[in-house]
Amino acid sequence: MNSPLKNDLYIKALLRQPTERTPLWVMRQAGRYLPEYRQLRAQAGSFMNLCTNPELACEVTLQPLRRFPLDAAILFSDILTIPDAMGLGLYFVEGEGPKFEKTVQSAADVEQLKRPDPSTSLAYVMDAVSLIRKNLNGDVPLIGFSGSPWTLATYMVEGGSSKAFAKIKRMIYGDPQTAHLLLDKLADAVIDYLNAQIESGAQAVQIFDTWGGALSPEMFRSFSLQYLEKIVNGLHRSYDGKTIPVVLFCKGCNSHLEAIADTGCDGVGVDWTITLAEARSRVGERVSLQGNLDPAIMLTNPEIIESQVIETLASFGKGSGHVFNLGHGITPEVDPHHMTVLTQSVREHSMSWHKD
Amino acid sequence: MNSPLKNDLYIKALLRQPTERTPLWVMRQAGRYLPEYRQLRAQAGSFMNLCTNPELACEVTLQPLRRFPLDAAILFSDILTIPDAMGLGLYFVEGEGPKFEKTVQSAADVEQLKRPDPSTSLAYVMDAVSLIRKNLNGDVPLIGFSGSPWTLATYMVEGGSSKAFAKIKRMIYGDPQTAHLLLDKLADAVIDYLNAQIESGAQAVQIFDTWGGALSPEMFRSFSLQYLEKIVNGLHRSYDGKTIPVVLFCKGCNSHLEAIADTGCDGVGVDWTITLAEARSRVGERVSLQGNLDPAIMLTNPEIIESQVIETLASFGKGSGHVFNLGHGITPEVDPHHMTVLTQSVREHSMSWHKD
Repeated sequence: MNSPLKNDLYIKALLRQPTERTPLWVMRQAGRYLPEYRQLRAQAGSFMNLCTNPELACEVTLQPLRRFPLDAAILFSDILTIPDAMGLGLYFVEGEGPKFEKTVQSAADVEQLKRPDPSTSLAYVMDAVSLIRKNLNGDVPLIGFSGSPWTLATYMVEGGSSKAFAKIKRMIYGDPQTAHLLLDKLADAVIDYLNAQIESGAQAVQIFDTWGGALSPEMFRSFSLQYLEKIVNGLHRSYDGKTIPVVLFCKGCNSHLEAIADTGCDGVGVDWTITLAEARSRVGERVSLQGNLDPAIMLTNPEIIESQVIETLASFGKGSGHVFNLGHGITPEVDPHHMTVLTQSVREHSMSWHKD
Repeated sequence: MNSPLKNDLYIKALLRQPTERTPLWVMRQAGRYLPEYRQLRAQAGSFMNLCTNPELACEVTLQPLRRFPLDAAILFSDILTIPDAMGLGLYFVEGEGPKFEKTVQSAADVEQLKRPDPSTSLAYVMDAVSLIRKNLNGDVPLIGFSGSPWTLATYMVEGGSSKAFAKIKRMIYGDPQTAHLLLDKLADAVIDYLNAQIESGAQAVQIFDTWGGALSPEMFRSFSLQYLEKIVNGLHRSYDGKTIPVVLFCKGCNSHLEAIADTGCDGVGVDWTITLAEARSRVGERVSLQGNLDPAIMLTNPEIIESQVIETLASFGKGSGHVFNLGHGITPEVDPHHMTVLTQSVREHSMSWHKD
């Protein structure tokens, strides 16, 4: 039996319910800018060792919460756990990012992909979720997450990170049937995966479409957004008597904000290349917004961080429906003290935007 | 005395004058996808040897025009010639991109930067422009170009390519005076450089703001757009009795199209993450548009290239004011035959959009 939630600001803000201040969490808040993370990472020997060991994943998830008064925890894991569980063999080369032993090039390759059973091949993730939820003791909600089908597919077809996305784009333009087969299979896998995370204790889920911005508008709708919508419709939207908010973050996709909001999700992440004022005016009352401080601001100094927090809060304006975050992950070079400044600034300056 | 221009479709389209079809050129049309380029590059020993030798730069510029019926030539050069001429010492590390021996970190560093005299420290570029113009023999116009102040500044402060832009962003947020000093100096240098290219024979100029998309809306206006506007106002807009069109291409900046059009430029480049229909409806009659086929389409097959050309032309719609191009540079893996398909498709399918 899990403890009742003591701080539900994050959940309420995502559901656009009144809160006394704006909640905050930070993408990659458990990460390399923290000395205690770097130490554990060195002991574990590899990034994947951290992800696959539930105790270590739990410890890493909790590290930033011991230092900073954040309003949510996010599962520490990798976005490529699903393709790994489908049988592609994920591994990491230092300085080169993720790689796969096998890649997907044809319909036959797609047919051979296993549909992962979260309770077996992804049990290490579910164990981590349960353990984190238990250890959080109801202090703040736990966010589960997954990569989007399109983003997962780029890695699976390219065999790793890419800039030009030559292979996957050759597939979507030249062999769209195979691409759709792959994406549909991935959407089902993401639904299973996130529902299992919810059943294991995740109180909200976020889907990262890191590479949606590489697509033309028509291709984004057909090869990314369509599958995000399928996932939103397939997820447990409430569990154990509680509403489970769903957040979509499609990096570099600000031109599609309205369409993303129309998927039926609860919240939409926005990067820093659009003002929250514009984003809010475009999505209206459909969804809450998450973001959007330029992560580079965290590299400056306390005065600038505070003044940019004030601007970001003012840009969203009055009322609920804003979860404060950076527009992308916090970078390794950030001074941890700047996170303290960020959390204090958001607390101090957001109150007035929530008064009548 | 240079020959009169036989094919002025590109110039006319940029000035939104009627043409019988849509003109086409391709970013990086002189490049690694051409075997004859790779051969010359290997002989020259380095990329910079190609740029600094006017005969080789001329030869490389003309290579794609011998194969394909393109409607413009573009000077073969590097965007970092200005910082090199300012004294930073440009060099290339194979597989790592451009680097500088010295970087700019402080106001004192900015003060020490030389204002390059195009007729001496950049004479190799002007010699190339004159030679290309002469050898083009009036067949098609010659486009001169420069990197934007913001884009040049990112390399000068970071010391090379960057993903997070940590140093330059620390500067613009933490020491904006120094950043403005640098950008203003760069804007003056770009004006001198492009005016010298025009005096040497360039019949249109394009400014590439490759990294404007890394900035928040407010920062883009203050640290990139402001200096683009200064340049547009400082350029020879006609020379030798001919109008010299100015094109701005700010990659990843589609949310700022209206503001870019308001600088007073003649044409605006757009990448493939927006439809030309939307771009045209937003910029109205102010400017012409250049773009915007996803470069990845060039990796597919002739049928797909043709159908996507048809879609792109239809998206722009009727009338003049469209220069066909990719949304970014052509990639090294493209089959040169696909360029033939592209040129034929644009010629064949654009005529009907220019009839009354």
